[in-house]
Amino acid sequence: MRARILAATGALLLDEGMAGVTIERVAELSGASKTTVYKWWPSKGALALDGYFHAVESALAFPDGGDVEVDLVAQLRSLARLLTGTPAGRVIAGIIGQAQTDPDLADVLLRHYSGPRRDLAVEVLRQAQECGQLRPDLDLDVTVDQLWGPFYHRLLLFPNMPITEEYATALVRNLLAGIRT
Amino acid sequence: MRARILAATGALLLDEGMAGVTIERVAELSGASKTTVYKWWPSKGALALDGYFHAVESALAFPDGGDVEVDLVAQLRSLARLLTGTPAGRVIAGIIGQAQTDPDLADVLLRHYSGPRRDLAVEVLRQAQECGQLRPDLDLDVTVDQLWGPFYHRLLLFPNMPITEEYATALVRNLLAGIRT
Repeated sequence: MRARILAATGALLLDEGMAGVTIERVAELSGASKTTVYKWWPSKGALALDGYFHAVESALAFPDGGDVEVDLVAQLRSLARLLTGTPAGRVIAGIIGQAQTDPDLADVLLRHYSGPRRDLAVEVLRQAQECGQLRPDLDLDVTVDQLWGPFYHRLLLFPNMPITEEYATALVRNLLAGIRT
Repeated sequence: MRARILAATGALLLDEGMAGVTIERVAELSGASKTTVYKWWPSKGALALDGYFHAVESALAFPDGGDVEVDLVAQLRSLARLLTGTPAGRVIAGIIGQAQTDPDLADVLLRHYSGPRRDLAVEVLRQAQECGQLRPDLDLDVTVDQLWGPFYHRLLLFPNMPITEEYATALVRNLLAGIRT
């Protein structure tokens, strides 16, 4: 039932944005009672972010082929497709936007979506570091910001600039090899 | 008079956010007539973004010492101080947030602030590239996203994470030298 509720929420969110997500419609679409939905999710925001996570999780899975460059390129190219080939980009941009003036939503965004995704990325980078593929003194949180931050920079500040698979590849190559001559 | 109007707008904006900026208060504070303000700025949003640009321009100036690493570190450390030591960070986060659901503000943000600042950054990187300090095949727009995007990633998605001068330095070192072993 939990998975059906999340699937219904994710579908409503990607179809209609935050405005389309109401506890009533989620209950109707999933076959759950409203009481059940309320029991598991304290707020509409928490439900929406969990539904978003559920909807995008498989697209954003990290492959584990053992070569950090290959794995990062695959994950970031999948993110590029998600942000530009589906409504997910505009949906998450709207949520991040609203979070700037809505502290409750900001808290839910961090705890239910951006925080867990960052933790996962740091863990993937830590494994590569422990295998000797990344510099031992590297700050992995700074690295996360330089690989995933650029997508949000374009999404939120430069909606006129393309987010393509080539863009994803260039981000990884630049950071791994460096840009100096 | 133009400079006085922009200074008044910037001061109101940094003190009180977008809600504090009204044509009336800008006119009063600068000594200009409302007609004059309306003549030069078609909307409150355009005036506010020009006021923001005016207020932060000197803090975000690019030094030109001839060494791209030194110059970038200085500019980005200054940005870190601005975003965390002054109200500018919360102000621009609020504007970017509102722009996600307000196409007019998004257009004004791009034309009056983020676009011109990106053009300036690309120009600085192009000069370093022409001097042979950056790889000749480098996509300078991707580079901009990897140096400035991380600040907005933390500001907008991870308000719990610090934006310090050490952070700024790490961003430049990572990207210039690369993170691979």
